[in-house]
Amino acid sequence: MGDLLYGIHPIYEALLAGRREFRRLYISKSRRIKGIETLFELARAGGTPVQYKAPDYFKSRLGDSVHQGLAAQVSELPLSDERAILKKAETDSALPLILGLDGIVDPQNLGSLVRTALAMGVHGIILPKTRAAPLSPAVSKASAGAMEHMLFARVANLVAALQRLKKAGLWVVGSHAGSQNAVDQADFNVGLVLVIGGEGKGLRPLVRKTCDYLVCVPQKTGIDSLNAAVAGAMIMYEVTRQRRK
Amino acid sequence: MGDLLYGIHPIYEALLAGRREFRRLYISKSRRIKGIETLFELARAGGTPVQYKAPDYFKSRLGDSVHQGLAAQVSELPLSDERAILKKAETDSALPLILGLDGIVDPQNLGSLVRTALAMGVHGIILPKTRAAPLSPAVSKASAGAMEHMLFARVANLVAALQRLKKAGLWVVGSHAGSQNAVDQADFNVGLVLVIGGEGKGLRPLVRKTCDYLVCVPQKTGIDSLNAAVAGAMIMYEVTRQRRK
Repeated sequence: MGDLLYGIHPIYEALLAGRREFRRLYISKSRRIKGIETLFELARAGGTPVQYKAPDYFKSRLGDSVHQGLAAQVSELPLSDERAILKKAETDSALPLILGLDGIVDPQNLGSLVRTALAMGVHGIILPKTRAAPLSPAVSKASAGAMEHMLFARVANLVAALQRLKKAGLWVVGSHAGSQNAVDQADFNVGLVLVIGGEGKGLRPLVRKTCDYLVCVPQKTGIDSLNAAVAGAMIMYEVTRQRRK
Repeated sequence: MGDLLYGIHPIYEALLAGRREFRRLYISKSRRIKGIETLFELARAGGTPVQYKAPDYFKSRLGDSVHQGLAAQVSELPLSDERAILKKAETDSALPLILGLDGIVDPQNLGSLVRTALAMGVHGIILPKTRAAPLSPAVSKASAGAMEHMLFARVANLVAALQRLKKAGLWVVGSHAGSQNAVDQADFNVGLVLVIGGEGKGLRPLVRKTCDYLVCVPQKTGIDSLNAAVAGAMIMYEVTRQRRK
């Protein structure tokens, strides 16, 4: 069992992160080594066998995905759990910032949120086992490889996980387009779980009820017309803005 | 000449906006009318001929695009110009907020920026004629139809356009990952052109020099690891946050 990672960023970041076992690196005969020298050296230093393949091999296994003539057979991304994520936050000696995702089923949106989360210093991401895109090579690609560095916990019951985190002293803040609370009115200088819902449906009612506080990003148009990953990014930005002060 | 719009949102928003001539609406024989009743009525009220087509027709013309069994032959999106955009800002009796895009060549990123811009109340978008994705049906889809409502000016020379806007009294602020100025340190309670660069290369040197001020979104990781559309969204959020106060 394992994954076929593809594209420069996911493979490079996975090599740097060192969390996956690299079984084989495939390079297209039609691509130059220029631009991937470091990646190549990292793979060789780790003893990964390299195989050169005709472009057809990539086409047949990856279709129209933007693979850049590079793929790697690797073990699955190891999962983490809430406790490890909380511990990481404490080690960072920062206020915890955990992302909870509810119903993010689109790999592009998930990848985008993961990429933003890593840049904004999120300590880990909690996903339900159902109603979430799997942590696939496509998500790693959409995250520009950020997925390879992020801690993920997949939980059977998101509501129960949020309740456990509340007991551990964190505040649970949900993004809800129907909320009357502008996001910048909230105080984010507390240990925090931000919960972002999927496009269209948003947070499930029970998840929403579990939140201590709901926020929205005020918009000019009356309707909720922000993409879920963009709304999530704005809220993560607001958290880091307040905490820089 | 014209475009083949596809998907529910672009076609619905184009009908609402009324800026394109609708020549024909194509509906897949395999899709139900449920969910598109209003769209259908708008098209009929406007006298658009409707044709039912086999799914193969969509496959052959749109490939793997997410067309939802709906396409429309329409005229091209009419372009605007700087003056009309400035006038719109004045009519809105708000501080002008104009977006300048430099080197956004990816239709997904362009669509995402357009969608966010509409939600954040941006008055219009200025794009260079080269080094920018065309305002294609794919961009309208990626913008969830927001493109149909936005004013666009395509200019031969972005630097010259920015200089004209400066003369008109606007401040030109550029997003530059290498800047030392955190975006929330800037004062956005002025008439504003925000200039966002493409991923990887960012703003061209001459565009950068034309800016009155450069800002960055502070990140935890040392490298610039935010997607261009996400960084742009965070800056637009910051502008509207400051202006709400």
